[in-house]
Amino acid sequence: MSTQLTASGPITLKTINPGILRADYAVRGKLAALAAQIRVDLGNGTHKWPFNRIVSLNLGNPQGCGQKPLTFFRQVLALLEYPELLELAEAGELGDAFPQDTRTRASALLRAVGSIGAYSSNYGYQCVREAVAEYISKRDGFPSVPEDIFLTCGAFEGMLISMTLLSGGHMQQPGERVGVLLPVPFYPVYRALLITLDLVPIFYHLDEQEGWKVRGKSSLENVIADARNQGIVPRCIVVINPSNPTGTVSSQANLETIIELSAEQNLVLLADEVYQENLFPGYTFVSCKAALRRVQTTRSSQDTRYSSLQLISLHSVSKGMVGEGGQRGGYFEAIGFPSEVREQLQKLITYMLQPASAGQILVDLMVNPPAPGQESYPLYKQEHTAVYNRLQRQADALDKAFEQMPGVHCARAQGAIYHFPRVGLPPAAVRAAKEMGETPDVWYCKKLLEATGVCVVPGSGFGMSDGSEDGKIWFRISFLDDETGWIGAMDRFQRQLLERYAGK
Amino acid sequence: MSTQLTASGPITLKTINPGILRADYAVRGKLAALAAQIRVDLGNGTHKWPFNRIVSLNLGNPQGCGQKPLTFFRQVLALLEYPELLELAEAGELGDAFPQDTRTRASALLRAVGSIGAYSSNYGYQCVREAVAEYISKRDGFPSVPEDIFLTCGAFEGMLISMTLLSGGHMQQPGERVGVLLPVPFYPVYRALLITLDLVPIFYHLDEQEGWKVRGKSSLENVIADARNQGIVPRCIVVINPSNPTGTVSSQANLETIIELSAEQNLVLLADEVYQENLFPGYTFVSCKAALRRVQTTRSSQDTRYSSLQLISLHSVSKGMVGEGGQRGGYFEAIGFPSEVREQLQKLITYMLQPASAGQILVDLMVNPPAPGQESYPLYKQEHTAVYNRLQRQADALDKAFEQMPGVHCARAQGAIYHFPRVGLPPAAVRAAKEMGETPDVWYCKKLLEATGVCVVPGSGFGMSDGSEDGKIWFRISFLDDETGWIGAMDRFQRQLLERYAGK
Repeated sequence: MSTQLTASGPITLKTINPGILRADYAVRGKLAALAAQIRVDLGNGTHKWPFNRIVSLNLGNPQGCGQKPLTFFRQVLALLEYPELLELAEAGELGDAFPQDTRTRASALLRAVGSIGAYSSNYGYQCVREAVAEYISKRDGFPSVPEDIFLTCGAFEGMLISMTLLSGGHMQQPGERVGVLLPVPFYPVYRALLITLDLVPIFYHLDEQEGWKVRGKSSLENVIADARNQGIVPRCIVVINPSNPTGTVSSQANLETIIELSAEQNLVLLADEVYQENLFPGYTFVSCKAALRRVQTTRSSQDTRYSSLQLISLHSVSKGMVGEGGQRGGYFEAIGFPSEVREQLQKLITYMLQPASAGQILVDLMVNPPAPGQESYPLYKQEHTAVYNRLQRQADALDKAFEQMPGVHCARAQGAIYHFPRVGLPPAAVRAAKEMGETPDVWYCKKLLEATGVCVVPGSGFGMSDGSEDGKIWFRISFLDDETGWIGAMDRFQRQLLERYAGK
Repeated sequence: MSTQLTASGPITLKTINPGILRADYAVRGKLAALAAQIRVDLGNGTHKWPFNRIVSLNLGNPQGCGQKPLTFFRQVLALLEYPELLELAEAGELGDAFPQDTRTRASALLRAVGSIGAYSSNYGYQCVREAVAEYISKRDGFPSVPEDIFLTCGAFEGMLISMTLLSGGHMQQPGERVGVLLPVPFYPVYRALLITLDLVPIFYHLDEQEGWKVRGKSSLENVIADARNQGIVPRCIVVINPSNPTGTVSSQANLETIIELSAEQNLVLLADEVYQENLFPGYTFVSCKAALRRVQTTRSSQDTRYSSLQLISLHSVSKGMVGEGGQRGGYFEAIGFPSEVREQLQKLITYMLQPASAGQILVDLMVNPPAPGQESYPLYKQEHTAVYNRLQRQADALDKAFEQMPGVHCARAQGAIYHFPRVGLPPAAVRAAKEMGETPDVWYCKKLLEATGVCVVPGSGFGMSDGSEDGKIWFRISFLDDETGWIGAMDRFQRQLLERYAGK
């Protein structure tokens, strides 16, 4: 029956968008499904698993892992959802539930945007676009204008708009395939989205020996030359800074390599900067925009390769100390587009985007939080610091654990919310994986999950090799969750695994 | 300079996705831009316009036009944004700001979903999927299951997922073009989205003489035959019920025509049912799903064309008495897909969708509002009725006005929130439009805006002819805004226009 359906329905495996068939999103893939099954067992109480909870370190889901929302942000949102509270508060009927500055902020927003149940402009609330431009101007020391800012439901929509602009090459030139350079390891949604839209990922490998930095320009040029030889036209390069999954923070010099390449090879530069607030001591965030502006000051303004370099930068409220992924807020800044292309971008936005109100308000609060001297500042500062310290503590604990674990190598966390350790598996372990019909990296992560309850994502989901050839595997693990003994369990797991398969 | 940029940047008018170039979204197009300019003038005070405000009847934006949010809904959302309010309320510190049943509902949701700042499953909160399935089961009298329900940020994402499933045909069969049947007049986002994704719209004209009903099956078969002759493979048909822009409510018989066609021609049926609560007295909503289930009971279960018909139904919180478009909530139900296709759909959702928390909560409240006997019911009922009556009053006022206006013909409102009147322009008016370099429908809507402040959308944006040939034009006008004299102004405008151009 099922076979017959396949043969006969309008959407079958033969007629479905083939990009979907080839796409793969490991973060929410088979291991996450196995974790969900185990969670059901744990709920039943009669299970035989050697742990009491699933530690979901596969996702970058801060509030799903116990990160606390910032009180000021939620107070303002509550007032905007139910503005009658403002009147009740003014009438003194709510005690001190809402400090004066949250009420002032909510009132100002309410006057500017009206009911949050109404559609905003597709570009987003004008007042929030202005606040974002001001934030970027201060952050970078180079001006940003509200007209370049577009609000989104999280960073994904910025990716979707960018990739939609690039797709459809075959309609212009029959057979033309447009390529997008992706770092390896990459954030898996990029690869999935690209191939769904019939764009070709062109992979450039980061240098693990150098803490996952971008390699020299010539290595990128070789990758591009190879792509061109295969009839692929590279038109965009993706940079993730701080990096997902490696946590690497890019310097001005690293970014200049990418900027020069983009200028010389005529590429749109897509800068994914959603982890810009997740930085450990000693590391500074340099935005692609600021790096570009600095480069532009050193180049002749006649060199339009630089003066009109096309850059789209993404940010969101999902990470950092805000961590409100479920509420869907974000923005992108688009610069360097000639006016006639910009008009097309704006038109595309009018039918593809409608940013969520709560997410937009969160963007406003993120870029303009309580300032010193304001009533809500002390609590905001205290909560912000607590989130930061918790992340750092957990990252440190994992850093130390990986340093001790035999067979594991991991760069220390610089930023973002993940580690991306490498594990050397003995040949016997690789054989064991193959006997189970699994790739070694998936096999390892499954074993880890079943032994410890810790759910991570195998490196092949990020474009790394799966360990079949040489036993080298990787996995991504977030450090969002409280340590409740699972780090020790991981250590024991690793030692027992090496012991069991050693020398065989 | 600009020309040089065009010639040299990575994204130019020559390299941009050509679907975007050909797309057009009239609802937020040039007229809306002109209205925005006029609004700035009005704000300055020294303007010369013969009106004091822009009446934005181009958008279907309920709360942007004064529709009040439902108090119960907003109370629950405020409690979920700031759960400390629950504790304060329990401690008696908030007076009677939150009735007991809103607190109970918010507590139950909070227990089920945790912080709304965390990501939900990409499919949506399980408890909301269950509530939706129960709602559909009751509405239709046929069972619905949570596994078929996927939460979205508004109905658009259901459209996006559906069209993404269908796109990429050229990758399977070089040169294959996949077509989607769209009603004319259509909701313009469909056409724009289709051509952006390289799908081909195949237009089937509704019958204005019969109140914009679907014509007989043979007329649809002719349209499909023409498409096939041009090498287009039709794979989906879109039905909008109640209709945007005509307000027509489809009967079981109308839907059966579409269902039979879908079965016989192997089409996915995409039912856009976002206006299902916007119905005037005497009209009943029949969902495509219920219509299909009824048809299935009369057919042999061996006839898999019917038993496995692929149907995707869309709904949202943006319209109806909820009207929370800015908060982005919606869902789609997908039935009839064989398991291997369903797996692909689920995978696509894991990297394309992340429904907004507030929108999901609103879906929950919409499908399960306060019930008789509950503390919040009387206020809910009163507000719900007030919104309904306001819409009906405004629709009636426009119905009557159009009946009186010379040269205007308009079907009475049955449902949804729009009228779609036809205007017969005298030849001299058509010539005047051409002299201004405008199509007659755009010219008319511009004149109307400049004379009355009323912003509507020209019929050509919905696929209707623009009046160049015979002076017949259409426009879409929502009846969301309070009548403040603008109906009389429209009447005067129409009479003066006919007088000025009559007999010439």
